[in-house]
Amino acid sequence: MTGACGGEDQSVTLDVLTKKMEEFAKERNWERFHSPRNLLLALVGEVGELSEIFQWKGEVPRGLPDWKEEEKIHLGEELSDVLLYLVRLSDICGVDLGKAALRKVELNALKYPVSLSKNSANKFNNNASLGV
Amino acid sequence: MTGACGGEDQSVTLDVLTKKMEEFAKERNWERFHSPRNLLLALVGEVGELSEIFQWKGEVPRGLPDWKEEEKIHLGEELSDVLLYLVRLSDICGVDLGKAALRKVELNALKYPVSLSKNSANKFNNNASLGV
Amino acid sequence: MTGACGGEDQSVTLDVLTKKMEEFAKERNWERFHSPRNLLLALVGEVGELSEIFQWKGEVPRGLPDWKEEEKIHLGEELSDVLLYLVRLSDICGVDLGKAALRKVELNALKYPVSLSKNSANKFNNNASLGV
Amino acid sequence: MTGACGGEDQSVTLDVLTKKMEEFAKERNWERFHSPRNLLLALVGEVGELSEIFQWKGEVPRGLPDWKEEEKIHLGEELSDVLLYLVRLSDICGVDLGKAALRKVELNALKYPVSLSKNSANKFNNNASLGV
Repeated sequence: MTGACGGEDQSVTLDVLTKKMEEFAKERNWERFHSPRNLLLALVGEVGELSEIFQWKGEVPRGLPDWKEEEKIHLGEELSDVLLYLVRLSDICGVDLGKAALRKVELNALKYPVSLSKNSANKFNNNASLGV
Repeated sequence: MTGACGGEDQSVTLDVLTKKMEEFAKERNWERFHSPRNLLLALVGEVGELSEIFQWKGEVPRGLPDWKEEEKIHLGEELSDVLLYLVRLSDICGVDLGKAALRKVELNALKYPVSLSKNSANKFNNNASLGV
Repeated sequence: MTGACGGEDQSVTLDVLTKKMEEFAKERNWERFHSPRNLLLALVGEVGELSEIFQWKGEVPRGLPDWKEEEKIHLGEELSDVLLYLVRLSDICGVDLGKAALRKVELNALKYPVSLSKNSANKFNNNASLGV
Repeated sequence: MTGACGGEDQSVTLDVLTKKMEEFAKERNWERFHSPRNLLLALVGEVGELSEIFQWKGEVPRGLPDWKEEEKIHLGEELSDVLLYLVRLSDICGVDLGKAALRKVELNALKYPVSLSKNSANKFNNNASLGV
């Protein structure tokens, strides 16, 4: 029975992270600090830490082939910090982030039809890329 | 049978978003633009747009009770844009974001034990809150 | 003689900071690290540190009346870090930041005429304020 | 007589920008919107716009030799927007930004002595560069 949805089990959902964040704050009585703008500034702080990892490196290739294992772990932590605050901010604002993200992907597909966008570097002058 | 994992089915996984982003870029031949630092700067751009939504509002209460429906939709879109670039950046860097995030939540729980953190505003002088 | 331009002497110019940054990098042979995108990411990192100072505070009044002296000094340092990287980034990109800033103030004045902008909170729905 | 301080006259001071920003806000009755965190979020918004200029370009060389004139002008405007909000935020917080920046340059020089820092790429693993 579990096998039937085993693949799904192994993938982390936004709802699971949302619940974990909520419990984490509740257990520590930290909910009072989690106002929308507090969380937004905390998110900006984490984006800053993420940027610091990349700041003196010049361009780096996909997959980060030359990075040490500890650097990759550190990167995973900073990416996670951004995600965790993003999930928490969404929750506190009453936004269903997963639903909103799926909808945004669809909007992007409409905005940048494959036939017109393919090979078009022009799009990138208009600040598009994932279509966001 | 589907009922057994129905709840899970309705929640968006990070893996699903990762795959959608990959396909989106592949179909449009945009993969060449998706280097780690390009994506990071695109993420920063989206965080800027998210901040603009909140910039002149002063403090706003949880749940955004006074916001118009269109403002909430716009907010959902900007939160999504940040998420989509974060997911794509993680993928391009070879980081399993979901796994990393679960691990980070556990590290945070160790770093901020409930017994010590409860009610402690002090933690917040050390830039903690979700423990991140 | 010095008295004739004494007021000017006491105010820090962008050119002075630009020169100091250039010398600082040259003396340490750090110029090779100062590419435009490296400096931009360093700037983002500093904006993150600035945000961390404000992140758990809720709204704070002008003049920061309740802040400890050491907090204000720390704030001054983070504001400075943002400025120093901004000045250096501008220089490396060949932009005369002081000149550009004066020009931008004039553009803003044209964009938001006093007669129309006065008391208008509407402007703020269009993400304006300093007119930037 | 003016010639004695002519060079100084031509360089923009932080005090001049501070005063211009203050007048700009006062004339439009926009001072009530200029709280510290509102201005901080506006600054983050502008850093996002600055990042968007560089986001799909890959690494770019100093002096931006291949950029069109209009791109450089746009860049100057975004750099200026960041500066103007930074200057305004400092003023509203009661920080003398010019003074703080000069002090920070001195602190950096102490932190990274020329003799030890020269040629040292190690420093960059510790997130240093301008010493900030």
